[in-house]
Amino acid sequence: MLRTKEQYHEKLSAMRPNIYIGGEKVGREDPRIRPGVRVYDLVFDLAQNPEWKGLATAHSPLINEEVNRFSLLPSNPYELMQKQKLIHLAARRAGGCIQRCMGQDGITALAVCTKEIDAAKGTDYHTRFLEFLRHYQKNDVAGCCAQTDSKGDRLKRPSQQDNPDHYVHVVERRNDGIVVRGYKMSITTVAYAEEMAVVPTRALTEEDRDYAVAFVIPPDTEGVRIITRPVWLRDNNDQDASPFCRLGVSDSVIIFDDVFVPKERVFMCGEWEFGRRMALLFANSHRHSYCGCKPAVSDILCGATMLAAEANNIAKASHVKEKLTEFASAAALAYSAGIAAALYGTLTASGVFFPNEVYANVGRRLTGELIYHEYNILTEIAGGISVTMPFHDDFKRGENVDELKKFIVRNAKLTPEESLKVWKFVEDLGASSMSAWYKIAGVHGGGSPIMETISLGMDYDFEDKKNLARYLAGIDEHLNDSKLRSAEPTMGLSLV
Amino acid sequence: MLRTKEQYHEKLSAMRPNIYIGGEKVGREDPRIRPGVRVYDLVFDLAQNPEWKGLATAHSPLINEEVNRFSLLPSNPYELMQKQKLIHLAARRAGGCIQRCMGQDGITALAVCTKEIDAAKGTDYHTRFLEFLRHYQKNDVAGCCAQTDSKGDRLKRPSQQDNPDHYVHVVERRNDGIVVRGYKMSITTVAYAEEMAVVPTRALTEEDRDYAVAFVIPPDTEGVRIITRPVWLRDNNDQDASPFCRLGVSDSVIIFDDVFVPKERVFMCGEWEFGRRMALLFANSHRHSYCGCKPAVSDILCGATMLAAEANNIAKASHVKEKLTEFASAAALAYSAGIAAALYGTLTASGVFFPNEVYANVGRRLTGELIYHEYNILTEIAGGISVTMPFHDDFKRGENVDELKKFIVRNAKLTPEESLKVWKFVEDLGASSMSAWYKIAGVHGGGSPIMETISLGMDYDFEDKKNLARYLAGIDEHLNDSKLRSAEPTMGLSLV
Amino acid sequence: MLRTKEQYHEKLSAMRPNIYIGGEKVGREDPRIRPGVRVYDLVFDLAQNPEWKGLATAHSPLINEEVNRFSLLPSNPYELMQKQKLIHLAARRAGGCIQRCMGQDGITALAVCTKEIDAAKGTDYHTRFLEFLRHYQKNDVAGCCAQTDSKGDRLKRPSQQDNPDHYVHVVERRNDGIVVRGYKMSITTVAYAEEMAVVPTRALTEEDRDYAVAFVIPPDTEGVRIITRPVWLRDNNDQDASPFCRLGVSDSVIIFDDVFVPKERVFMCGEWEFGRRMALLFANSHRHSYCGCKPAVSDILCGATMLAAEANNIAKASHVKEKLTEFASAAALAYSAGIAAALYGTLTASGVFFPNEVYANVGRRLTGELIYHEYNILTEIAGGISVTMPFHDDFKRGENVDELKKFIVRNAKLTPEESLKVWKFVEDLGASSMSAWYKIAGVHGGGSPIMETISLGMDYDFEDKKNLARYLAGIDEHLNDSKLRSAEPTMGLSLV
Amino acid sequence: MLRTKEQYHEKLSAMRPNIYIGGEKVGREDPRIRPGVRVYDLVFDLAQNPEWKGLATAHSPLINEEVNRFSLLPSNPYELMQKQKLIHLAARRAGGCIQRCMGQDGITALAVCTKEIDAAKGTDYHTRFLEFLRHYQKNDVAGCCAQTDSKGDRLKRPSQQDNPDHYVHVVERRNDGIVVRGYKMSITTVAYAEEMAVVPTRALTEEDRDYAVAFVIPPDTEGVRIITRPVWLRDNNDQDASPFCRLGVSDSVIIFDDVFVPKERVFMCGEWEFGRRMALLFANSHRHSYCGCKPAVSDILCGATMLAAEANNIAKASHVKEKLTEFASAAALAYSAGIAAALYGTLTASGVFFPNEVYANVGRRLTGELIYHEYNILTEIAGGISVTMPFHDDFKRGENVDELKKFIVRNAKLTPEESLKVWKFVEDLGASSMSAWYKIAGVHGGGSPIMETISLGMDYDFEDKKNLARYLAGIDEHLNDSKLRSAEPTMGLSLV
Repeated sequence: MLRTKEQYHEKLSAMRPNIYIGGEKVGREDPRIRPGVRVYDLVFDLAQNPEWKGLATAHSPLINEEVNRFSLLPSNPYELMQKQKLIHLAARRAGGCIQRCMGQDGITALAVCTKEIDAAKGTDYHTRFLEFLRHYQKNDVAGCCAQTDSKGDRLKRPSQQDNPDHYVHVVERRNDGIVVRGYKMSITTVAYAEEMAVVPTRALTEEDRDYAVAFVIPPDTEGVRIITRPVWLRDNNDQDASPFCRLGVSDSVIIFDDVFVPKERVFMCGEWEFGRRMALLFANSHRHSYCGCKPAVSDILCGATMLAAEANNIAKASHVKEKLTEFASAAALAYSAGIAAALYGTLTASGVFFPNEVYANVGRRLTGELIYHEYNILTEIAGGISVTMPFHDDFKRGENVDELKKFIVRNAKLTPEESLKVWKFVEDLGASSMSAWYKIAGVHGGGSPIMETISLGMDYDFEDKKNLARYLAGIDEHLNDSKLRSAEPTMGLSLV
Repeated sequence: MLRTKEQYHEKLSAMRPNIYIGGEKVGREDPRIRPGVRVYDLVFDLAQNPEWKGLATAHSPLINEEVNRFSLLPSNPYELMQKQKLIHLAARRAGGCIQRCMGQDGITALAVCTKEIDAAKGTDYHTRFLEFLRHYQKNDVAGCCAQTDSKGDRLKRPSQQDNPDHYVHVVERRNDGIVVRGYKMSITTVAYAEEMAVVPTRALTEEDRDYAVAFVIPPDTEGVRIITRPVWLRDNNDQDASPFCRLGVSDSVIIFDDVFVPKERVFMCGEWEFGRRMALLFANSHRHSYCGCKPAVSDILCGATMLAAEANNIAKASHVKEKLTEFASAAALAYSAGIAAALYGTLTASGVFFPNEVYANVGRRLTGELIYHEYNILTEIAGGISVTMPFHDDFKRGENVDELKKFIVRNAKLTPEESLKVWKFVEDLGASSMSAWYKIAGVHGGGSPIMETISLGMDYDFEDKKNLARYLAGIDEHLNDSKLRSAEPTMGLSLV
Repeated sequence: MLRTKEQYHEKLSAMRPNIYIGGEKVGREDPRIRPGVRVYDLVFDLAQNPEWKGLATAHSPLINEEVNRFSLLPSNPYELMQKQKLIHLAARRAGGCIQRCMGQDGITALAVCTKEIDAAKGTDYHTRFLEFLRHYQKNDVAGCCAQTDSKGDRLKRPSQQDNPDHYVHVVERRNDGIVVRGYKMSITTVAYAEEMAVVPTRALTEEDRDYAVAFVIPPDTEGVRIITRPVWLRDNNDQDASPFCRLGVSDSVIIFDDVFVPKERVFMCGEWEFGRRMALLFANSHRHSYCGCKPAVSDILCGATMLAAEANNIAKASHVKEKLTEFASAAALAYSAGIAAALYGTLTASGVFFPNEVYANVGRRLTGELIYHEYNILTEIAGGISVTMPFHDDFKRGENVDELKKFIVRNAKLTPEESLKVWKFVEDLGASSMSAWYKIAGVHGGGSPIMETISLGMDYDFEDKKNLARYLAGIDEHLNDSKLRSAEPTMGLSLV
Repeated sequence: MLRTKEQYHEKLSAMRPNIYIGGEKVGREDPRIRPGVRVYDLVFDLAQNPEWKGLATAHSPLINEEVNRFSLLPSNPYELMQKQKLIHLAARRAGGCIQRCMGQDGITALAVCTKEIDAAKGTDYHTRFLEFLRHYQKNDVAGCCAQTDSKGDRLKRPSQQDNPDHYVHVVERRNDGIVVRGYKMSITTVAYAEEMAVVPTRALTEEDRDYAVAFVIPPDTEGVRIITRPVWLRDNNDQDASPFCRLGVSDSVIIFDDVFVPKERVFMCGEWEFGRRMALLFANSHRHSYCGCKPAVSDILCGATMLAAEANNIAKASHVKEKLTEFASAAALAYSAGIAAALYGTLTASGVFFPNEVYANVGRRLTGELIYHEYNILTEIAGGISVTMPFHDDFKRGENVDELKKFIVRNAKLTPEESLKVWKFVEDLGASSMSAWYKIAGVHGGGSPIMETISLGMDYDFEDKKNLARYLAGIDEHLNDSKLRSAEPTMGLSLV
């Protein structure tokens, strides 16, 4: 089923109010979280639009129906590329974070890992999971994923924390399910999602057994409390609001206060050896998703910089042109890392085709390293006006309106209204609370550069490079490059 | 006279209301501009404090009295160093921009340039100016400087603009003074200053003669309208507010709508050949001031990063320690550029000792190049919490208060209250509208890196380097390094 | 035919001696150019080796035979990927530059452009070219390409130069061919190639008509003089020489002193409108080739850094591990740009599948921007020893041999001989004339970063980004993203 | 006494031949080390030249005579500034490393530390040292300093090494002196110095007591063997050689094979608690010296880049001008750090005025971080010609001379000879073994960036920054900035 946004809204309204903002309990129709809801709307709209059929939607062999691509498990490189392309396209329209990718990354991680746990442990999580997935696909569920625990003391493992709730964990095992408690934090979109996947955030030891837990439940389940922070509070009724202003996001702390999870929704429980695997499956899938969305952020910053340069009438200056190519490079390199991750991915036992970790990580890391610099470029070209321009209302009323409309025009080709829209957009994009969010999420979302550095340290074939150097230095007589030898590389080039 | 902040407030209250915020005309007691006023208060307090006597204050030979150092014309390297030191110290307490330096940079530019104009043109601006300066020092006036014109089309000179008001200019010359009109923009502090110096923003040609105008008037002079934008709107009554939250800034567009300036306050009128000189005198003095304040910003970011690292209990991680030294380097290099600018400055005809342009420019440029990167470091170490933490009120009321207080503690050495203050500060500093302002002002205030690059292109002795290369390459037989030869370098080492 | 290196050597010996080194005329058996010849040998060996069949070789539809892949015109994305893979693999063994790719890039440019000229002008260059290509493939010719003219005054176009010879040009048109003269410079490998393609280096105007000339001739053709500079002079007889030391390269100035080119070898003559196209076809194909070789250079630097870290017994230090991932990132991002360039390439009228220019350029630019930094990492980890270690002979004879053998061991796991080989390799790689060549060629070979910046300025779809910003800013009501709309992107995803 | 270079040469000739190059024992007149000797000559010449009196020379209160400034102990900030200025000036003429600064840094370290050891331990090293210093000054001795031990396994302290000789240590204590053995490495200039100071290279523990040894002896003392590596072997007789080509350097491994050091030359013996202090005194003094020489290297690279730009006729391109300012910034920031280090230095108990560690370290670190980048700029502007130009002899003889002279001219304002000299210099500077040395020494000489990072971690007042943040965050009520309070800062501003 491909639902409409109206159906989605109906569902949100029916959910149990367990959202908190500023100390108040509110329902999911609270206007402060609307900007985020509108991003989900945008994805529902894309899937309804016949022009995007086959990209925003896909055929699911599991239920033999057309489904939202965000519900699909990729089974070949092409589907990974289509996912990346859809994220890129949607993120451009969303002005950045498309949010629903997390649900897709969550089911990907669960699909792959349940299969592997079953093989190692004789459990039957994967069957359970597929049953859940049928429901998820059939009902076009807007899902999300909650991974980041509040973590407490970073030097201690979960079971060593003074306060055990710093990581979500099992407190009771029953025949019909389990009871969990603890905190997750920095969870984007959960305030208006219909299901949330919960997965571990790190490698675990045997002592951390209770922390090895994964499940999917509706966010309004009894015992769940969601304290959310809409990123950017704006006047919701402003008729003039630009598309960028109407869209937004919110992040939440989730308190699991002895929450019951029925057995059929439990997908890991105690298999601590797979904590790290599950954590990395979600993280690496999400890093591949970033190779789609971050190029869109570069596109937007590039476009905004071009508008500012035009409004300043310096679009033809050589240093402006040169700086614009930095956005081109940032976008194209990250996108190509996603493409390579797709082509050199791995077919897992579950049938899910999983992106190559090395390429996904270098792509994601690059974007995290560049994000502040990209904003810096916008600032360099735009000048100080984005933080010193009079408030919007000064252009609408009072005795200075006429003068300010003259003041704002620096390029006669633009009307005062257009000039104002340009500078308002530059401000909204580059000098609002939203821009702080985009910079910080740009560094940390899906794992910060230091996490990708650690992943690369594990995944990259450094021994091969050392052997190469030993050969060239004359220490070893022969070079074993068997890994590169076969016509299809070990990295798994697998063209459809 | 060294005034108290109460005297300053009294004066503000008596000024003509010509401030506009969001379309409304307001007086200088409007709470939205209070955070900026408090920064001026801080400077008045320092000068009253006996502990800072001789640093926050200085003896003025002109009036033979102790004056606020921000009213003093430096006459030797040591006084330039003291100015830099005072700015550094005050900026730390102000959480960044100390604002009142601009008044000092304005009088410096006027003092030097009026003397030079008089010598070239036989005018008597300098005498007029000294008369004004006596008043300024005697009354401990809180001054500011308005340089940046709205500029209109960047490719056209002032006299070529479609709208002549894009640069402030003379529209009438009378016996008793002149009438000026036009727009200035991005003018910090003018909304609560008592006098404003107005100087040109660029080199001028003969056709731009009417744009060669400099003067000082009170900001509430008839015909002046100030549309101001307080950087960061906060609840003014919050008793819990941290010092950082209570301090702020505002920037303004100033409309000069046929404003009369009495003759004794006119310090340049038509001497277009000195447009560039006046513009650079202010800019270069201000760039030297930045060598005092930007190290303070690095200090604050360094300290905030340390608090975040401690709250995350990762203060001893090697990558954290390494990153902290980047703040040390940013602060110490910029500060040392200011010191060298002072030592290698020039004694001008006016008796003002002026900082060396090359050192002032490399110092300022460095800070502009690094500011986004410094925020990036804070983000790297702090993590995503600064944009995803629940709102402050969630920690104060409602049913999640107890859990959130547990949630927020990651290092048992800190209480929940301390932890919350740390993260609130990290948010205020790194993820608020204020941080956008600090980044963007950090790039553009006092001239952006590209302006310093242009200045360096003019001021740096590139020919000397080429001659050196010609000698070493064997093209020229002898190396003329007479500029380095004398025991006291041409750069003007002049120890007190 | 797949020739052996012995057959290649035989051919070299038979060529007319027209090579000059240090003022002397020498033949192609001169030991100073042997290190470069050995790189060609390596490619012949790979093609002979059954293990690399299908990668080092390929089936040519043109002559229906198995040919050296460097003689093949790619006809689909997969063949572009195979070319890139072969270059990567061979470059690892060559210790860097594989040299023979230039011949491949040359025939690619000629194939595509001759077809396009014929279509526009009614000429028959393409047929001629295919005839030549049959010969080239059948005889497994070791080709190269000479593009860079000596250029003279950079501010003047070819026809404006005081000395017309600064660009190769036609001086006589005969029935049976043309006569050309002028200088090419910085031409790698021509000193031991069997054929050289000559193509223009820049866009041309109608006045530059005589400079619009492309052809292929043997480098020992009458009138050609090749002044070559072997990069790194070493003792050729050293039995101990490491593989890295035995391999090398040379660059040449080529003087065309009224050289006759027979008609069947002329592939452009006067079609100035195609000067730029031909120049960019070679450049962009070559930039795609760089996406194969430069990752190999990163591999080698990575491996050398690992050996140095091991020899210093600091391999486990966290800053070492972190820095190693920078090589991983450099290699994987450049490689993925090549993959994306292949997948999003274009099928030209000639049947040649040509890499996507945007991806090829961002990949090449990245490598050019990073190369000095990568050497810096090696230096940081290795320490100063690579420039301060006693000469090799000190370890072989004289009274200090025993002490020096003790001195050189810093990690007991390595013998003195191994330690010495490590440090010798680090020196050869990072502190020899060869390393200067690799850094400088790493910046400029195939076009320097500024050339890729210019290419990106032309090829990247900046208008799309501006339109996106106009939509998000609320200036335009609709977003036209038709270019992203179709399931297969305009960029031309074309999976085999 | 101010000696002439002839007197210095005479002394060198009289020294015991204990230099080894490539397995051969040679005397100090060996032409391969002449390029380094010429740098010492240059310093002797400067001191003889009346024009540089007072800069290259200074009055020594110790012997009440005019001495070479490199023999003087600085007693105030001005003398530190003069040292820095002399190094800058001489380094420009030397084309880089001035070498003799190390001797000055060595005596500085010994002077300060002996006084402190005596105070703590009741020894009389300082008196002995002053006696030595009288001789050193009176005879204008060309000294050097040997600090870097060969170090062996980096994870082990000196006394833990398998081979005890990896650090120089005492093997016998006699009444009349001590016997030492071990290896020092990477010791610049020792091959042609007349005295060498030997100091520890790291912090020591009680077990390392034998490694706590400092002394000064002539490098030809019995038992000393010096295996030296001249950086860049060139034809010594080339009459055409440019000044840059005639100058050079060599580095040595020194083997101390049971060397007797007479008591009066022993300045530390067993006082392990001062190992770190002595090591840092030399290192930090040397880092201050770098603030003089590295700006000269930037000057030279800047000038070479200008010559290349002129020869390419692109000197007016905006990207060229912009890049040149990077050299200006590198030079001026490092120089200003040295100035600040001098002004904010410390008067030690010995009477030596010692540079501020924080400023010295940020200055030195900056230069180490930038050096590869500076060479990159030269490469960007110069193009590939520096590694592809025919050998010098091709321009002198053979049949291509005329053509090559035409070829080499790209800017009609330069003759062929000048053009050739430009490109030869660019090659010598940027693409020779010498440039590898300058890059690697630029990173590691005097301590690599990671060493300065560690020093900053110890010396920088991080607590002050944290306290500042605690105040601004509202955690602490008061800000204690007493360190900034006093009119003369704790950092020790001490104007002469």
